[in-house]
Amino acid sequence: MAKPKKIQRPKAQTPKGFRDYFGAEVAQRTDMLQTIAGVYHRYGFEALETAAVETVDALGKFLPDVDRPNEGVFAWQEDDGNDPDLKGGDWLALRYDLTAPLARVYAQHRNDLPTPYRRFAMGPVWRNEKPGPGRFRQFYQCDADTVGSGSVAADAEICAMLCDTLEAVGIERGDYVVRINNRKVLNGIIDSLAEKTLKGFIADPLTQSEEGEIAVVKRVLKNLAEGVMRTLDKVDKVGVEGVAELLGKGRKDSSGAFIEGQNLPPVIVESLLKFLNAKSSDNAKTLSNLEAIVGGSDEGAAGVRELQTMADLLAAGGYGPDRIVIDPSVVRGLGYYTGPVFEAELTFEIQDEKGRPRSFGSVAGGGRYDDLVKRFTGQEVPATGTSIGVDRLLAALHMKGRLTSDTTGPVVVTVMDRDRMADYQAIVSELRQAGIRSEVYLGNPKNFGNQLKYADQRNSPIAIIQGGDELAAGTLQIKDLILGAKIAETATHEEWKDRPSQFEIPRADLVKRIKALLDEQAK
Amino acid sequence: MAKPKKIQRPKAQTPKGFRDYFGAEVAQRTDMLQTIAGVYHRYGFEALETAAVETVDALGKFLPDVDRPNEGVFAWQEDDGNDPDLKGGDWLALRYDLTAPLARVYAQHRNDLPTPYRRFAMGPVWRNEKPGPGRFRQFYQCDADTVGSGSVAADAEICAMLCDTLEAVGIERGDYVVRINNRKVLNGIIDSLAEKTLKGFIADPLTQSEEGEIAVVKRVLKNLAEGVMRTLDKVDKVGVEGVAELLGKGRKDSSGAFIEGQNLPPVIVESLLKFLNAKSSDNAKTLSNLEAIVGGSDEGAAGVRELQTMADLLAAGGYGPDRIVIDPSVVRGLGYYTGPVFEAELTFEIQDEKGRPRSFGSVAGGGRYDDLVKRFTGQEVPATGTSIGVDRLLAALHMKGRLTSDTTGPVVVTVMDRDRMADYQAIVSELRQAGIRSEVYLGNPKNFGNQLKYADQRNSPIAIIQGGDELAAGTLQIKDLILGAKIAETATHEEWKDRPSQFEIPRADLVKRIKALLDEQAK
Repeated sequence: MAKPKKIQRPKAQTPKGFRDYFGAEVAQRTDMLQTIAGVYHRYGFEALETAAVETVDALGKFLPDVDRPNEGVFAWQEDDGNDPDLKGGDWLALRYDLTAPLARVYAQHRNDLPTPYRRFAMGPVWRNEKPGPGRFRQFYQCDADTVGSGSVAADAEICAMLCDTLEAVGIERGDYVVRINNRKVLNGIIDSLAEKTLKGFIADPLTQSEEGEIAVVKRVLKNLAEGVMRTLDKVDKVGVEGVAELLGKGRKDSSGAFIEGQNLPPVIVESLLKFLNAKSSDNAKTLSNLEAIVGGSDEGAAGVRELQTMADLLAAGGYGPDRIVIDPSVVRGLGYYTGPVFEAELTFEIQDEKGRPRSFGSVAGGGRYDDLVKRFTGQEVPATGTSIGVDRLLAALHMKGRLTSDTTGPVVVTVMDRDRMADYQAIVSELRQAGIRSEVYLGNPKNFGNQLKYADQRNSPIAIIQGGDELAAGTLQIKDLILGAKIAETATHEEWKDRPSQFEIPRADLVKRIKALLDEQAK
Repeated sequence: MAKPKKIQRPKAQTPKGFRDYFGAEVAQRTDMLQTIAGVYHRYGFEALETAAVETVDALGKFLPDVDRPNEGVFAWQEDDGNDPDLKGGDWLALRYDLTAPLARVYAQHRNDLPTPYRRFAMGPVWRNEKPGPGRFRQFYQCDADTVGSGSVAADAEICAMLCDTLEAVGIERGDYVVRINNRKVLNGIIDSLAEKTLKGFIADPLTQSEEGEIAVVKRVLKNLAEGVMRTLDKVDKVGVEGVAELLGKGRKDSSGAFIEGQNLPPVIVESLLKFLNAKSSDNAKTLSNLEAIVGGSDEGAAGVRELQTMADLLAAGGYGPDRIVIDPSVVRGLGYYTGPVFEAELTFEIQDEKGRPRSFGSVAGGGRYDDLVKRFTGQEVPATGTSIGVDRLLAALHMKGRLTSDTTGPVVVTVMDRDRMADYQAIVSELRQAGIRSEVYLGNPKNFGNQLKYADQRNSPIAIIQGGDELAAGTLQIKDLILGAKIAETATHEEWKDRPSQFEIPRADLVKRIKALLDEQAK
């Protein structure tokens, strides 16, 4: 006998790495985005909203952190549409950040946009990465960028704005710091290292002129620079000693696996560590340390000057060293940064998964990327900007207990007599017109207990009851569910005896009395 | 000689059918979404935000309007990730509406959600359709649904909420109407037609018993029902006469092409037209017309009763026939509706592309769909809801001139001396702390004319100037750009002579004076 065919039902499941957000979570994020938009707008930035979908061609290959596994975008090829077999349209993809679309927009609309073009954007981005605990493939970013200005005043302004934004969303001064650095400084150090360590670095000296040898070394080092930057960027995770090992032969990670290093000669590793350690609590001291390290490199000196200018501009606007810290360990592992780079870090302590204290860490980053628009137009367009990780910032506020969001449910009008639904509807209608969140119970009204259970599940402050007696008397029963819960907790009526948790009011006083009770509860 | 290889640059272009939104457009939509969320929340609905991506399996095949060309979703298959050649993961897709994800969410989380579950959701949805003028492949929806309530009170409430929402976003009473109908009425008519027209419909009478014949006709008609509903839904476009032709043999469209009809016998077409024409300006009259048409059908009679109940409940809440109209021509071309259906229509006139007056039409629709969750769980879960087409509603408000959004640019602090950037930064910093939108000009400051041109392009209200003289005197020059533009327009200084468009203020009075001037301009 043939087995009866089982009905195949679809699984009710979010795809791997995606999640749903309910109620207060949605409201909290919306509130935060609005607050951030307000600060960005006050700074003169204009909103821009691009579609989630771009051509793969336009997105390019600027995806950060290319050393992660499964890195990529969600992409598909356009069908002809009339003929599903006819493939060969454009490749489309979900945006992986908000910067690549900005470069496309600026190139596409540059004749109609003011220069500089200052825009902010907020919305989800998608990464086709291996999902993990707390790591999702869709998350929110909140960016502001200035396109078409080469002035470090633009970079400085973004750092000031990061400070204002963090304070606006509820991070107190003292609980954050914006750390700034400049890629030119690192480039300069690499330059100067090439000259200083020529003999030491090339084991088998070249037979060309000394100048030619320097050029070769510089090229070798430039090729290594990306790896060096990514390694330096790991100082938060592995410490200075770990970075030293990773720049040299390599190191064992916590699982015991050996991670191959950059194999730089010790003399270079030492100089790079000096760079990492150049930081002082005094910005002026840090700058003079860096000046000494970059030596005769023009680019390095320019980088130090830019840092100096940024610090001065920020100080002039009231953003002093308590909030803006020059820190050479800020590298930002992204190839495309060309000048100033910065990172907003929350400094308060949290516990890691093993219960050890650590500082919360970075919630925003950014920097100058002068080559991004050039891909489209061939013209170099200087640009700088920042991206705030909204979900991380929300997590931080949650940990600090600073997310105040109203989770109060609606006033619930119970249904005592299902034929009198119109009366109950009239009650909520009045309440809603008065701005009071309310609803009629719309489940099966047979079991009154279920109605109160529902009100409880919704976190409702008040239930309203009108049976035949109340109807005849022109009254309503009001159940104060907040007080009721308190009484249930303390298990004695003594201290609440002056304030009954259920009482009767005239029907005509509905709005007035419910408003008064809600105000009372809110105290 | 070989041709020099041309550098291939990516095209700076949005994919076909997608667009960018700038400045005020973004702000207006954000404002509208917030306003709508406010009304939905007041009605007791909770926010839900799902990811843009769902499994194709979970989305199912509920895409509306399947008779459109190129209909479909944007979908792709998951890679294994570690091995790009290893295909065979889940098929994922961008959501095409917000209802399919809701069904998935309810099935997935039903044990943790209250019943009824009332949720609202807003965000973009994606359709892989052929794009056209004004027709985009990403657009916003704004939904509210009640899952787990079979009561028509839930449907009535959604209609009331649609009224409140339209008024909240700026559509005046009298400029809209919510038209309601019930699928059961149409089903009932089809039932009753089957019995009445048995002989007329089946050309070659079957040899079975009469009862068997009725069953066959009913089945034939049920199969036709979808086509009938889609045809009736076209009454807005082709008129009652056009519908009659499309239910019968067919008709020539405006291009002269022949559209094949449903080939229903004339007696059935006639009854269906009676149904369409049952509408009266008086809801009670419409109901009695419908009662007569559904004849002895139980389902039809139930539909009429439900319409009656909805109209009564709505009237009890103050939503009378000036806003709620029973209209049998509301069919909603979507197969899955099972009971009440409704549509919010803007009734004011606009001109179509040929300059002929027509009413703006539908901006929201919805209805009861009791089978959607069943796909996942096997259990029937009653549900009803609405979806507002936010972009269409924005277009309507735009046409009515009711979109008030502040397009004023920032106060621009010009740069007279680039070495004094810190001073200019300090000025904007003060202004921003006082909540005034402002910025320093960050382009190349060499040409002062370009700075004023920039301020003009940004729609700035005020420019601030401080050269060496002003610095020495401790003052600022203030340029009232709004007044300046007015003077330029009228080409005479006479009427403005008491109010100069440029004047000097003490540096110390910055915030006070700029605030005063902005207030003056806002008058």
